[in-house]
Amino acid sequence: MKHIYESQQFTVPRIMELFERTPLMKRIVARGGTQDYHTKILATLFYNSSTRTRFSFESAMLRLGGKILSTEHAREFSSEVKGELLEDTIRIISNYCDCIVLRHFEEGGAKRAAAVSPVSIINAGDGSGGQHPTQALLDLFTIYNECKILNGLSVAMIGALDLGRTVRSLAYLLSKFERVKLYFIAPAELQIKSDILQHLDEKRVSYELSDSLEEVISKVDVVYQTRIDRERLSNYHLDLSRFNIDQSVLGKMKTDSVIMHPLPRSVELSSAIDSDPRAAYFRQAQNGLFVRMALLTMIFDEE
Amino acid sequence: MKHIYESQQFTVPRIMELFERTPLMKRIVARGGTQDYHTKILATLFYNSSTRTRFSFESAMLRLGGKILSTEHAREFSSEVKGELLEDTIRIISNYCDCIVLRHFEEGGAKRAAAVSPVSIINAGDGSGGQHPTQALLDLFTIYNECKILNGLSVAMIGALDLGRTVRSLAYLLSKFERVKLYFIAPAELQIKSDILQHLDEKRVSYELSDSLEEVISKVDVVYQTRIDRERLSNYHLDLSRFNIDQSVLGKMKTDSVIMHPLPRSVELSSAIDSDPRAAYFRQAQNGLFVRMALLTMIFDEE
Amino acid sequence: MKHIYESQQFTVPRIMELFERTPLMKRIVARGGTQDYHTKILATLFYNSSTRTRFSFESAMLRLGGKILSTEHAREFSSEVKGELLEDTIRIISNYCDCIVLRHFEEGGAKRAAAVSPVSIINAGDGSGGQHPTQALLDLFTIYNECKILNGLSVAMIGALDLGRTVRSLAYLLSKFERVKLYFIAPAELQIKSDILQHLDEKRVSYELSDSLEEVISKVDVVYQTRIDRERLSNYHLDLSRFNIDQSVLGKMKTDSVIMHPLPRSVELSSAIDSDPRAAYFRQAQNGLFVRMALLTMIFDEE
Repeated sequence: MKHIYESQQFTVPRIMELFERTPLMKRIVARGGTQDYHTKILATLFYNSSTRTRFSFESAMLRLGGKILSTEHAREFSSEVKGELLEDTIRIISNYCDCIVLRHFEEGGAKRAAAVSPVSIINAGDGSGGQHPTQALLDLFTIYNECKILNGLSVAMIGALDLGRTVRSLAYLLSKFERVKLYFIAPAELQIKSDILQHLDEKRVSYELSDSLEEVISKVDVVYQTRIDRERLSNYHLDLSRFNIDQSVLGKMKTDSVIMHPLPRSVELSSAIDSDPRAAYFRQAQNGLFVRMALLTMIFDEE
Repeated sequence: MKHIYESQQFTVPRIMELFERTPLMKRIVARGGTQDYHTKILATLFYNSSTRTRFSFESAMLRLGGKILSTEHAREFSSEVKGELLEDTIRIISNYCDCIVLRHFEEGGAKRAAAVSPVSIINAGDGSGGQHPTQALLDLFTIYNECKILNGLSVAMIGALDLGRTVRSLAYLLSKFERVKLYFIAPAELQIKSDILQHLDEKRVSYELSDSLEEVISKVDVVYQTRIDRERLSNYHLDLSRFNIDQSVLGKMKTDSVIMHPLPRSVELSSAIDSDPRAAYFRQAQNGLFVRMALLTMIFDEE
Repeated sequence: MKHIYESQQFTVPRIMELFERTPLMKRIVARGGTQDYHTKILATLFYNSSTRTRFSFESAMLRLGGKILSTEHAREFSSEVKGELLEDTIRIISNYCDCIVLRHFEEGGAKRAAAVSPVSIINAGDGSGGQHPTQALLDLFTIYNECKILNGLSVAMIGALDLGRTVRSLAYLLSKFERVKLYFIAPAELQIKSDILQHLDEKRVSYELSDSLEEVISKVDVVYQTRIDRERLSNYHLDLSRFNIDQSVLGKMKTDSVIMHPLPRSVELSSAIDSDPRAAYFRQAQNGLFVRMALLTMIFDEE
């Protein structure tokens, strides 16, 4: 647990430990944070920018009493562009902090960083086909918090799944629970990659591939929508509007189901449904803060 | 007072409450700041960059003992560029902090943000024809501090006034005081817009439009110079050098008048007059820190 | 000692005072930092970006209990690009902090800033032919820490020395010690500039210019390699591969010599030698934190 680079690292007991700590973090924030981690420095090293994810980690650290070093766009603004090794950068930056939150542009970047770093590395996204394990943890916590169970759930994941970092990481996590059924809804060109399916086969997790939202939507407990990259779509000459979640879809869903989205969203998720009680995506974003706080305390407490 | 999006929100009693708090902030800074607001996090969300304004807010928060989350250039480095709604961004970022200082590229951006935000929104500039209310408050405080009065003053505002965010916000504030006389000095093409004049008419504030600095300069208590955007001027084929404030202008001014400028400056304000006692623009920049500290304490104390 | 803009400012007693404080800083970091400087704010104002140097200063400040204001790329993101004077920027930013760490794109920028600043200016690199005095101090501390002496050392400096900011600053520092011998190893087109040689002549420091690493490598106690700017080389049609430090060079070096590099590195320093005990460059980067902490305490304690 020193480094967090992929979802597979987390055992069920570890996940449940994290999810027990998480509500405590909500109470800590409500009473104005703690000073318990005031000796710790967290550095965000983001080679691709994401204000949301960066702020989520930085706020988590500040609410714990810790301090932050911050980069918005390390790729542009560091000598990395001139050919420096990621490993060298990590060796140097690790002198300045107690934990590095890394978003890197290459699949496997976080694991390479972890191999040389004396301080904890947390993967905040590596490459378009890589992982984003803390997003998966906050997604799973949201499912747990909304549904109160993790075994026996049916989950539909929708979008350009082949490069869907969050979907990939979440599939690994869900595969650890019993009687889970996964539906991957995407046009054939953008379906989930075989490495995930192979993993699900090994874990004997039931799944279906489909290119029809309509056939699946009434069966599932969780609808996990993801963002459409319009540039990619136009390259493929694909129309994904049939996968959009809007008011016409709501009526077909279970009344106690949950709609999630890692945000930011585009046309694939209509703001007209924001006030529906099943719309959990803003609660999901808020959970990100608490889950990341809990994760940081687990890392620091075990040192 | 939860959100600060436009000058019009401020009543005279509110303004005077702010101006009574402001000198206290100067004393707090002189003795090394306070820890009173150590549970608070302020996020600067700047879609257009301004190191000066950002540092002014962030320093104010740090001197109060608070913590900061920071963006230099959210427009470039967030997914906003891919079409995310400002409202969604605010809903998410508001989970991570207690106050958002927003500089947005669209007029009305701050008001839209305030409509959905559970935490305070402070407008640090919205669009080129929008407002910048905290700049106007520090400008007004500087006038008050230099002249010791606010009623009965004559104020000349000079420059490309049609898109002058600071001038627009300050005109709204000055219109709240008695026997104020405003001179808008600009070429006809760049004169102050009619919405401001209409507001002044309604408030029965006396004003004159002029394109001659020379005719006005000897009559006024305050000369508020603003920056010339050379690109705009070249589009209009205008020469504004007759509006420049330099040593030749000093002799025509009242001996107890005040020269202000929101900075940064270009050729319109000569550095040769920096040592003149009437040159108040560096004191004005310094006041920004104290006024913003006072404003933050008012927001947090009322929560 | 209010402002740190060039190496020449440091007398030997000052240097030794700094080097006595430095190991204390290492112990402070090991026990989780101090809160002694909690009233202080340090602003990093970087017109050219360097995540490494910026983080080194910011971490130093945080470990001392101080607070930070941060810019990654002031040149791009401030109004400076529109022609604002550096002096104006410094006058304004100095209201918001107690110390400004400045990386400026023009030689002499730090000295110009120091001339108008009421708060301390620390030069973190000014122009390609300027100085980087804190880098030189951490380099000298590393030499002292590795070799245990500063008098009587032979030091080879290698690379594009004409624009080598770190080499220039280090040469000034080394010239203050006795019986030092400097070797400047570079192709004639890129040799160290005459102002440095003139300074060494005045200080009666022994030096040699050479374009052969092989002739010098076996004689020196310290090999100071610097980064090759490939763009510059291609303009000159130069091949500098004969100056590369790799395993074949190790055998020719003294067994108790020291290999240094300001990092980031490119092909001029092979990662194959990282595990050799003489490879001191990662320790050198770590020393940067402690030397900068010590320097900040000297500045703040003398206020």
